[in-house]
Amino acid sequence: MKAAATQPYFWNVRVYYEDTDAAGVVYYANYLKYLERARTEWLAAAGVTLSALEIEHNAVFVVHRLEIDYRRPARLGDSLTIRLAPVERTRVRLVVAQDILRSDELISSARVSLACLDRRTWRPVVIPECIPGHARRIGRTGSTAPREKLS
Amino acid sequence: MKAAATQPYFWNVRVYYEDTDAAGVVYYANYLKYLERARTEWLAAAGVTLSALEIEHNAVFVVHRLEIDYRRPARLGDSLTIRLAPVERTRVRLVVAQDILRSDELISSARVSLACLDRRTWRPVVIPECIPGHARRIGRTGSTAPREKLS
Amino acid sequence: MKAAATQPYFWNVRVYYEDTDAAGVVYYANYLKYLERARTEWLAAAGVTLSALEIEHNAVFVVHRLEIDYRRPARLGDSLTIRLAPVERTRVRLVVAQDILRSDELISSARVSLACLDRRTWRPVVIPECIPGHARRIGRTGSTAPREKLS
Amino acid sequence: MKAAATQPYFWNVRVYYEDTDAAGVVYYANYLKYLERARTEWLAAAGVTLSALEIEHNAVFVVHRLEIDYRRPARLGDSLTIRLAPVERTRVRLVVAQDILRSDELISSARVSLACLDRRTWRPVVIPECIPGHARRIGRTGSTAPREKLS
Repeated sequence: MKAAATQPYFWNVRVYYEDTDAAGVVYYANYLKYLERARTEWLAAAGVTLSALEIEHNAVFVVHRLEIDYRRPARLGDSLTIRLAPVERTRVRLVVAQDILRSDELISSARVSLACLDRRTWRPVVIPECIPGHARRIGRTGSTAPREKLS
Repeated sequence: MKAAATQPYFWNVRVYYEDTDAAGVVYYANYLKYLERARTEWLAAAGVTLSALEIEHNAVFVVHRLEIDYRRPARLGDSLTIRLAPVERTRVRLVVAQDILRSDELISSARVSLACLDRRTWRPVVIPECIPGHARRIGRTGSTAPREKLS
Repeated sequence: MKAAATQPYFWNVRVYYEDTDAAGVVYYANYLKYLERARTEWLAAAGVTLSALEIEHNAVFVVHRLEIDYRRPARLGDSLTIRLAPVERTRVRLVVAQDILRSDELISSARVSLACLDRRTWRPVVIPECIPGHARRIGRTGSTAPREKLS
Repeated sequence: MKAAATQPYFWNVRVYYEDTDAAGVVYYANYLKYLERARTEWLAAAGVTLSALEIEHNAVFVVHRLEIDYRRPARLGDSLTIRLAPVERTRVRLVVAQDILRSDELISSARVSLACLDRRTWRPVVIPECIPGHARRIGRTGSTAPREKLS
């Protein structure tokens, strides 16, 4: 695996009214939007756009499993950082760890399992090589996915 | 125009946490979701599904202009009613008045101008006859759109 | 525990444009909105409103952990059913299993861990007795939470 | 009025999956989120945070009327610019023009009327002087609001 894929990636977001709810905190589903923005920007930083994935590979990148722990509430005006690191990869699956931080305080911690699907049939396809964290050599040797915690 | 199209249509929604913001009220963009749910259900009540529109007519029904007055805030747990009535129609445009009510208290009042677009070219097409409030006879005689307030 | 709390609860939703994304399916974060609507209605069916919880108990009911498997995509116009059943409870925590179904086809399957917090301090409080699925007798005997899968 | 308030303000956003719908374009309500992000950042650039408004002035800044024209669809991955300029102000109301652009192509054009409310009573209050575009001198002379298009 190339060095680039093992480095954590960071993306910042600001909490707006749209993200909050009447309890005065970020609504629990909206953290998933932050997670996806960070994944999209991580791909973009590696030169991969979701539109190109759709057009060139007929592929969409989807979440098939998500685990998230909500530790502390984020609030209106907060500046949050999403840290992303791939932690597991096979030919058809990519798992990323994503933490949401406010300075060095952990707000939420997620583990997101992703797959590529053919957008016409919605069936799994091999993750294109352009995706960072892709198991290029692992795929060739047929070995199972290593579990190396990178974050 | 058939009688059915001139009757106001009513749809009820409940305010959940997802709809509210840190000011303790429904977030201003989320009223537009209520408006669209009511339009979708109004079409469904007339036998028109958006999926069928897409498949049979290659058409999507889009908003091209919206005016909305926010009168009073709605809050968590409120039960709201959306009242819909067509107020203007031409061969390519349909304007509906949509009020959001909490019992008989007016929360918001909107005027929504809709058009049908070809989903492949995103160019305007004549509104299919299946759409309620469609100017069937007006279209035939080529007359301009009447402005009759129905709500 | 009263019989009522062990029965699965069902709540129906319709998929609108607001719920979908450019991949043509329900956006992954939006399933969490469906889950919360079902939890809110389940509480309401037991006579508990979130506003009353806030006012009478100074409590907010929050998710502190969520696991969700996305099995199949839901699409525009789909009619979905959310099935909810409590599966684990202690004095301060309530875990519910929530499946999202389209007829008898499983769309998503979630396990949601909830806690009550004091809305002023954001510290955990004992779950009020009014909450269905609450471990009234379990709490008294101090036994650990049973894991009984009810769905 | 100070020069700063008359200059248009610009804020950029990226279109993510969360913003789009099954028609392949940005969902109509989500443009309002972009508009609000730009207003929030415009205030922040003038040293005003919404949290401070709430705490120091017990005030929330709310939209009481909105007009928006949807000209062209924005799509997944688009980079959009929101241009904001105050166009009208009285002691209790501030109207801003907000255009959404993709390069120099006009996507949407909005006119948003804002008011400050006391967050405890939800009654209008005089807009604090810290808000940019505030009619300091207009307020003193009691003159009516000028309509000067600045964008």
